[in-house]
Amino acid sequence: MATQILVQEIIDFLGPDLIEVYGEFKNLYVKHLKPLSSVDRDTLDWVNPSIVNKQEISEKSNARVIIVDSDVQYTKKIASQKKVLIIVDNPKLTLAKIGNNFFVEKYEAGIHGSAVIHPEAKIGDNLYAAANVVIGKCHIGDHVVLHPNVTVNDGVIIGDHVSIKPGAVIGYDGFGYERNEKGDLTKFPQVGGLIIGDYVDVGSGCCIDRGSLGDTLIGFNTKINNLCRIAHNVEIGENVVLAGHVNISGSTIIEDNVWVSPCACFRGHQRVGKKAIIGMGAVVTKDVPPGETWVGNPARRIER
Amino acid sequence: MATQILVQEIIDFLGPDLIEVYGEFKNLYVKHLKPLSSVDRDTLDWVNPSIVNKQEISEKSNARVIIVDSDVQYTKKIASQKKVLIIVDNPKLTLAKIGNNFFVEKYEAGIHGSAVIHPEAKIGDNLYAAANVVIGKCHIGDHVVLHPNVTVNDGVIIGDHVSIKPGAVIGYDGFGYERNEKGDLTKFPQVGGLIIGDYVDVGSGCCIDRGSLGDTLIGFNTKINNLCRIAHNVEIGENVVLAGHVNISGSTIIEDNVWVSPCACFRGHQRVGKKAIIGMGAVVTKDVPPGETWVGNPARRIER
Amino acid sequence: MATQILVQEIIDFLGPDLIEVYGEFKNLYVKHLKPLSSVDRDTLDWVNPSIVNKQEISEKSNARVIIVDSDVQYTKKIASQKKVLIIVDNPKLTLAKIGNNFFVEKYEAGIHGSAVIHPEAKIGDNLYAAANVVIGKCHIGDHVVLHPNVTVNDGVIIGDHVSIKPGAVIGYDGFGYERNEKGDLTKFPQVGGLIIGDYVDVGSGCCIDRGSLGDTLIGFNTKINNLCRIAHNVEIGENVVLAGHVNISGSTIIEDNVWVSPCACFRGHQRVGKKAIIGMGAVVTKDVPPGETWVGNPARRIER
Repeated sequence: MATQILVQEIIDFLGPDLIEVYGEFKNLYVKHLKPLSSVDRDTLDWVNPSIVNKQEISEKSNARVIIVDSDVQYTKKIASQKKVLIIVDNPKLTLAKIGNNFFVEKYEAGIHGSAVIHPEAKIGDNLYAAANVVIGKCHIGDHVVLHPNVTVNDGVIIGDHVSIKPGAVIGYDGFGYERNEKGDLTKFPQVGGLIIGDYVDVGSGCCIDRGSLGDTLIGFNTKINNLCRIAHNVEIGENVVLAGHVNISGSTIIEDNVWVSPCACFRGHQRVGKKAIIGMGAVVTKDVPPGETWVGNPARRIER
Repeated sequence: MATQILVQEIIDFLGPDLIEVYGEFKNLYVKHLKPLSSVDRDTLDWVNPSIVNKQEISEKSNARVIIVDSDVQYTKKIASQKKVLIIVDNPKLTLAKIGNNFFVEKYEAGIHGSAVIHPEAKIGDNLYAAANVVIGKCHIGDHVVLHPNVTVNDGVIIGDHVSIKPGAVIGYDGFGYERNEKGDLTKFPQVGGLIIGDYVDVGSGCCIDRGSLGDTLIGFNTKINNLCRIAHNVEIGENVVLAGHVNISGSTIIEDNVWVSPCACFRGHQRVGKKAIIGMGAVVTKDVPPGETWVGNPARRIER
Repeated sequence: MATQILVQEIIDFLGPDLIEVYGEFKNLYVKHLKPLSSVDRDTLDWVNPSIVNKQEISEKSNARVIIVDSDVQYTKKIASQKKVLIIVDNPKLTLAKIGNNFFVEKYEAGIHGSAVIHPEAKIGDNLYAAANVVIGKCHIGDHVVLHPNVTVNDGVIIGDHVSIKPGAVIGYDGFGYERNEKGDLTKFPQVGGLIIGDYVDVGSGCCIDRGSLGDTLIGFNTKINNLCRIAHNVEIGENVVLAGHVNISGSTIIEDNVWVSPCACFRGHQRVGKKAIIGMGAVVTKDVPPGETWVGNPARRIER
């Protein structure tokens, strides 16, 4: 990966996101991103706008190049340190964009020899399929990344720019049983589909079931952390965040921009309104109106 | 799979489950199962007996063939729509039976070339072993379905008609440690077995550990949803339902017909009596008497 | 595995751990370990020092060889039964040591033909890599056991004597997003490492993420049960126990000798002090001081 990135390249990349640059950056470069505790001379450093002592942190940083917001002054001290300040509105978002462009290794398209792909699968352009990936008779969009041991069942539809981490299980039968005359459990048919929108990220070990009669839906740009379970017929909107170990029972609807904290679980057939926030370990047994914050077992509304 | 199923075939299949058929069904066929929102002309529709307006739903359905209970009348309106009503006691169970017989794809026996099977494993008839399945020196019954990436350890005994979804980990060492003289953790031997009864379903990503000295037991027809953890020496009875993300600690006993909701967890060495119901996210730290319903953290009995 | 172990071999193995042996053991042997309910003549039995009626249990045992503490007397009755009593300080720990030495099957070093290993991975001595293991460009120490379907990402550092159960996902990207100008989620770079200390055990299906900018750390001899999630930048100390389904959010610190019960979850950026005990299903949203016990949702301190 990147070893030396010229500041000039970063400035060109930022375009209109850049408010101002202070300091002399000709031939100056950075080499890596580092956490606060180990920032060195070659780090592209940044200062979180939400903290109090940003000026002091900028002055004490060992780095030569620092991304800050416009509250930080290009003082004589910083000038004398020959530091470069890159001023932007949102340093964290800017660092994310620069990091993704210059410092994050891209997965080159290619299918590992050990991947097993159904001959009738419809595969888009630039698929990255790592070792031991298993792909059924499904549709996969363009620029999809499937990490090792991911399993995609027949009938699944996956959009473009989707990333699925190792071991995730995509589109297998949901869990539905009826008791028969003797009281024994009889499986209810699971013949529905699963549709995953563009730019969805699915975490390691997640299990997302196909619908029973209809479809399970995961909306555009929704991000799902590790070890989540999403049951049959669940409908998740756009830009939803599901943190780790979240459990969503059958037919529940999670609307756009909802934020779900780790280990929250949802009863089936509920609706969680737009921009709701669900706390860690919340046990949600009712509908949650839009914009509300719910926590606890059982979950209740709190004022934020 | 099935494209056209004649109503006559369905009637023949139902046998004594059929109470009555109304309407002309000669040469009439259905093509698929659909959820309420997308029922069309070719759907085999059904009406849930527990809802109020079944007559109205039957009359408004776009389908030509509808499974209902005997509360629904074959009215002039329905007759004029040329609909066929199939009258049974339990339309949902009947739909399940018909669906499983006519609309659910069967897994044909066969072992994928990438499966790795111990040469001394004892394998029954008609095993379906998908890609990347790993089978140790164990016993597997007849008509077993192992989905991709399932791992079965040495010493496990699996009954007939067992289905295990992708990525499940079956019969590996349990989690037991003793502190040694220096206070460091030393593993306690995990040399017991795991016995899984007939008709058990195991969900994706489940981890069921072997016993430490004795055996872990999963009883006849028990159904386990995704991402459950079942620890060493746990004993689960017959027809038990474990929903997703359930966690059962070592040596706990779950008796027959218990229903466990998602994300419930159980302390070790407890006993949960027959037909008990455990609520979502319940943290069960005590014995639960038969037939009781427990919810909350810590879990307590509630009246239903 | 072991079929007949002479008592003499066990005594030689125990060395200074042995306090006394009573009874005639020339040519006497044991064949296996068994749970209390199925102890037979050939079992190496033991009596838990914490129970009340140890003398009675020793006298009623069907076994010929029993490990006990010095509270148990070599009575006339036991002598007449021709039993051998092995007296030690801690029978359970002693049984663990004997069991691990004589009765637990060792994994012989070797790499299964289906394992996929990056050509630049640095692998120590005596690696056991089972079927379908995927190893990136990482460092792996000596005497490491990787069970089937384990996936280790590039950049991970794994110490000596580490054991990782099936399906665990080691060192993939953490879960960090920033909202961009349009409110859409943009991934924050995940370029840090993951360092796993010596003698760590990782359970089946666990997901341990790499750091975002810094490293995720798992300390010496820490034991992690199945289906745990450890997020980016988490730091776990030495001899920590994480039971099943534990969820630790980003940048949280768990100090040495902490005991975490099943299904506990931790907010990010918290610190759990040494020897703290966290109860089952606890939802930990604050720092926990050393030595305290916290339970509940939200978790609060209790007196033990």
